Amino acid sequence: MKLLRVGAPGEETPAVLAEDGSVRSLTGLTGDVDGAFLAGGGVERVRAALAAGELPVLDAEGVRVGAPVARPGKVVCVGLNYRDHAAETGAAIPTRPVVFMKDPATVVGPYDEVLIPRGSVKTDWEVELAVVIGRRARYLESPEQAAACVAGYAVSNDVSEREFQLEFSAQWDLGKSCETFNPLGPWLVTPDEVGDPQALGMRLSVNGEARQDGDTKEMVFDVAYLVWYLSQYMVLNPGDVINTGTPAGVALGRSDQPYLRAGDVVELSVDGLGTQRQTFVDA
Amino acid sequence: MKLLRVGAPGEETPAVLAEDGSVRSLTGLTGDVDGAFLAGGGVERVRAALAAGELPVLDAEGVRVGAPVARPGKVVCVGLNYRDHAAETGAAIPTRPVVFMKDPATVVGPYDEVLIPRGSVKTDWEVELAVVIGRRARYLESPEQAAACVAGYAVSNDVSEREFQLEFSAQWDLGKSCETFNPLGPWLVTPDEVGDPQALGMRLSVNGEARQDGDTKEMVFDVAYLVWYLSQYMVLNPGDVINTGTPAGVALGRSDQPYLRAGDVVELSVDGLGTQRQTFVDA
Repeated sequence: MKLLRVGAPGEETPAVLAEDGSVRSLTGLTGDVDGAFLAGGGVERVRAALAAGELPVLDAEGVRVGAPVARPGKVVCVGLNYRDHAAETGAAIPTRPVVFMKDPATVVGPYDEVLIPRGSVKTDWEVELAVVIGRRARYLESPEQAAACVAGYAVSNDVSEREFQLEFSAQWDLGKSCETFNPLGPWLVTPDEVGDPQALGMRLSVNGEARQDGDTKEMVFDVAYLVWYLSQYMVLNPGDVINTGTPAGVALGRSDQPYLRAGDVVELSVDGLGTQRQTFVDA
Repeated sequence: MKLLRVGAPGEETPAVLAEDGSVRSLTGLTGDVDGAFLAGGGVERVRAALAAGELPVLDAEGVRVGAPVARPGKVVCVGLNYRDHAAETGAAIPTRPVVFMKDPATVVGPYDEVLIPRGSVKTDWEVELAVVIGRRARYLESPEQAAACVAGYAVSNDVSEREFQLEFSAQWDLGKSCETFNPLGPWLVTPDEVGDPQALGMRLSVNGEARQDGDTKEMVFDVAYLVWYLSQYMVLNPGDVINTGTPAGVALGRSDQPYLRAGDVVELSVDGLGTQRQTFVDA
């Protein structure tokens, strides 16, 4: 199942993409797709209502698509989680997940404009598989318990400003938390539709030129391990988002370092999770 | 004015501490003390209602005190922001603020138990001045504009697990984001009552033994500079919290490294902002 949210920022209507391609409104079932909805069996209620033909069609033609989950409590990011990306940035393959955070207010819709921060000369892209938590994960006993805590998956662009991230201090969060720096969606896709999360091709282009072409099978630490690992150190709550790392091909890793400029168009996709497209503009 | 929230976790009642020492309920004015309340002139409404004698007394005897602001959108932390603390940890005085984040779900009440994470051997304390944002700060033109964006101040214990923070990767957030790791309060004190935020004594003891004894005048980057600086790289939203750094005296900086164990009692205060007291227990 593919959950989505359509409408102006802050006024999104929760919805589901039906198999016939129509968008169906969930307003009769929930106020929003958020942590409480995911934790409270919301997905199963949508599934039942959809099967029963109870959900009205929503005319979503030309309407903005928001992020598929409202107000994440936190966005946890995992750095250097693809071998080829670690290599291109000159870093060693980590022996433990490298964990940092983004301001959760950076989450925007998949087609929204992304702002190049004032003074930025190193705004970069990162296609990632995002995991959305559906059930509280706290001290999971093993990675095998992780699947029960995952509500679904989404495409994420973990936009990064490399000077702010790497040159201003040794802590990365500053260059990850700029306004609009986390396009998410278009959909939250439930695990039954995604299949094996470690067998998803992913790609990103800038102005039509291919830049990233990876596969989640190349992750250093897989999704189940990451959810288990993080649960040993923090509580993962319903609605929280994990950005699981990016494969090679970012501007930072290229000899010509073609960082993003106003007018650039970035397109990115993960198999089965849809495609994002953002125009970058000056803040 | 001193705003507070009293009641069981997740069910706190918004309140104000009147000058006669009574706690007055704000339920007639607002559902909670949160970003929307702070941004929407809530503090001024409370001031007027208090002056008019319109706020009913709340029997808060024996009732838990929660964090004074509900659901911060983010908790931004500034590392190594006191010269003596940088020195004790062997770090250089930073030339720019060192910015990292805590999971905002770590925020708990000032007298709540704090959980020592499973497997932890290096759980540490950090008394800090917390700044609570009251108005959106985005690309402020100068530090002089920061004051208008500050709703008030509070005591914060930026609890830290040093092995998770410093030894598991180069990124600190993992050791800052454990469950219950951010006691905040007891009050959100408005700037008019605080006076100069750069002239506040602060202290912390463990089981009655003095451990930290600092003053906000020793900050490397002051509050106004920090709010201005952060606003160049991220949007600070009403209800967001900034932990502005800790002075010397943490366990990490002592030769005997007396990290916290179950049963330890930590007491901390900042001039004019009240006192916290936590018992540490095993998670």
